[in-house]
Amino acid sequence: MRLKGFEKLTQIDEALRIYFDVVKPKSLGGVDISIHEALGRVTAKDIIAEKDLPPFNRSAVDGYAVKAEDTTNTSQSNLKILQLTQKTTITKNHAKPVWTGNPLPNGADAVIMLEHVKHLDNNIEISVQITPGENVSRRGEDIQKGQVAVKSGTRLKPQHLGLLAALGKTAISVVEQPKVAILSTGNELVELGKKPDANQIVDVNRLVLSSMCRELGAEPVDLGIARDDENKISARIRQGLEKAHIVITSGGTSTGKADLVPVAIDKLGKPGVIVHGVAMRPGMPTALAVLQYKPLVVLSGNPVAAMIGFEVFVRPLVLALLGVKDESRPVLKAKLTRRVAGALGRRVFLRVLVSQKDDQFFAEPVRVTGSGILSTMTKANGYVVIPENREGLEEGETVLVSLFDKVKTEETKDV
Amino acid sequence: MRLKGFEKLTQIDEALRIYFDVVKPKSLGGVDISIHEALGRVTAKDIIAEKDLPPFNRSAVDGYAVKAEDTTNTSQSNLKILQLTQKTTITKNHAKPVWTGNPLPNGADAVIMLEHVKHLDNNIEISVQITPGENVSRRGEDIQKGQVAVKSGTRLKPQHLGLLAALGKTAISVVEQPKVAILSTGNELVELGKKPDANQIVDVNRLVLSSMCRELGAEPVDLGIARDDENKISARIRQGLEKAHIVITSGGTSTGKADLVPVAIDKLGKPGVIVHGVAMRPGMPTALAVLQYKPLVVLSGNPVAAMIGFEVFVRPLVLALLGVKDESRPVLKAKLTRRVAGALGRRVFLRVLVSQKDDQFFAEPVRVTGSGILSTMTKANGYVVIPENREGLEEGETVLVSLFDKVKTEETKDV
Repeated sequence: MRLKGFEKLTQIDEALRIYFDVVKPKSLGGVDISIHEALGRVTAKDIIAEKDLPPFNRSAVDGYAVKAEDTTNTSQSNLKILQLTQKTTITKNHAKPVWTGNPLPNGADAVIMLEHVKHLDNNIEISVQITPGENVSRRGEDIQKGQVAVKSGTRLKPQHLGLLAALGKTAISVVEQPKVAILSTGNELVELGKKPDANQIVDVNRLVLSSMCRELGAEPVDLGIARDDENKISARIRQGLEKAHIVITSGGTSTGKADLVPVAIDKLGKPGVIVHGVAMRPGMPTALAVLQYKPLVVLSGNPVAAMIGFEVFVRPLVLALLGVKDESRPVLKAKLTRRVAGALGRRVFLRVLVSQKDDQFFAEPVRVTGSGILSTMTKANGYVVIPENREGLEEGETVLVSLFDKVKTEETKDV
Repeated sequence: MRLKGFEKLTQIDEALRIYFDVVKPKSLGGVDISIHEALGRVTAKDIIAEKDLPPFNRSAVDGYAVKAEDTTNTSQSNLKILQLTQKTTITKNHAKPVWTGNPLPNGADAVIMLEHVKHLDNNIEISVQITPGENVSRRGEDIQKGQVAVKSGTRLKPQHLGLLAALGKTAISVVEQPKVAILSTGNELVELGKKPDANQIVDVNRLVLSSMCRELGAEPVDLGIARDDENKISARIRQGLEKAHIVITSGGTSTGKADLVPVAIDKLGKPGVIVHGVAMRPGMPTALAVLQYKPLVVLSGNPVAAMIGFEVFVRPLVLALLGVKDESRPVLKAKLTRRVAGALGRRVFLRVLVSQKDDQFFAEPVRVTGSGILSTMTKANGYVVIPENREGLEEGETVLVSLFDKVKTEETKDV
């Protein structure tokens, strides 16, 4: 049993580099699903347009299709009359009514807007000159046959689905949902819904971590609570490796608990634990491991530290399995409202409440005494990184905030 | 049939004011659901802590619980020995091992970190002085019994669920999901999955608008496609009013189509259409109506204009029915990469692609020739508002971008 804390802490960037070098996470395979189920899923390959969009030249406005040359030199002082026709082909000095989206009739090359026309009985009076192509959406202007409509690795938003639907796609190849098995360890834990005895606490980490998985588009697999017992922990982890692409645990990793989970992992095979002890706050006792080519992330039992550990190590793993190339949280620049201490040599994740006043954002550090204080996460809406080489951040300093909840505006701040 | 376009356009702010004055949207009722289903839902009332959290004074670190007064004047040059005990109560000059989260033993008022202690056989050697309360999470420090844990109108994130679980909550009162009935109108439309003939196009708006509803936490109700026929449109709208809290339509509202949908609405009762024609681009032919105390929003048939109309008029309605007080999109300040024209008197929604270079964000206007160009929405990741009183925005001007997709970073921009 180690009593002196971690001999050596690994810097976060170094830990990520070492870990990803071993894990080499790659996008999971593609599965075809209905476009109606595809919102929020990630494309498994480039989706190519199989036709032009629009499929024909069409009017971009309500008005009259004409030959542009028939409007030459037309003006308020030189009005011109065009004859209305309902024929499929426009001939010289003729015009045909069209609505937005209608195909441009043969022979026409432009559209005069309704507003610029006086409608008479069988003809129209025009007072403007227009150029060929004016008010026309050309065939292929939106996207051309053979072009990439949506790139591989795109998280599908409503607008992507709209473009794919317009192209007639009904089935979309999306990346399989990564499965993340989640285990809590600790004799002190009871299931949510059971009344904790004195000295017991409700296990919140499985709910929090599974919710974080869902937000990313991963499917949580529940491994329950394991007692502080190497064999029991090993057995659950083995189950997790069978059922999921990633296994995460929380608890049983601090020095006080004798590295129970890391030891249980190392019993199961090689390479086992690769990093144990990370130069971060909170989250210092985090461990990173690999078994059966699958990543295992051992998080602190402390809920806030577990969330930060998830953010730093599990999130990029899940995104890599999804094939998402870049999906950082929304960031914004804000003025720090007071000085805060850092921790030289460690990266500190400072929880802040960002509010907007006029055109300026302010980041107010949420006061904490312990990293276990969950309400710091519900009071905050983002975090600021204090780098390893800074003793602290100054009052008034401009900081980059990563947002995990909405920004408070003046009206809502005190609600 | 109106041929001259809209006689008068209503400014967006005025339209919203008039409309919300009539509709007076209020939060729907609460329903109790399992905390395991509550991610992303909105709380229907303040949730009060029914106990202190932590429920007892507990150690915030791995170490030894002591009486702080026993460490007075201790230093590297004035070491002190404390005797180890396993008793439930700490007496003078005794210490008891505790792990993070353990209850503080009776008689103890502080914890010495493991790292600051030399463990001998039956005692420990300490070299630091600590103060009462040091390394202790006090009962109620996170949240106290009777305090509001999560406010009414909060969209539940993982951290909120964590706090509620820690308080032992298993059922959460959340606001009922607003139902939004969605109708497309137009003779030219065919269902996705059917091959469009020449002159036909696939209806994309129902899929896009229902996806936007889902993103907000509303439940879409499909009303299908109606032909350009007042009676058919009226019949579908009546169905929508029976089934949903909000009805939205797209198509049949531009001047060319003779205001089909607004006329169909006005046939169904009073007050009917309140605003028709809004000073915005795109989305000018938008109409706002009320029937049976329910809001109806009549959007342009053009997919991009329909999306912007949804953003401006439907989104705030849905959020109001959800009781969400403020949920603006993430915003950031960026430098505009080129000059763009506005439209005096109209609010223009300019689609931009925001990218990050070093510490600076740049907003590149996505070039468009028509508002129907769906790929402008997939190429953009946000929009900038050009106010009614601006002729345009200048190159290099700092603009506020509302993001609807992730920001491109240097590494991913060209992928």
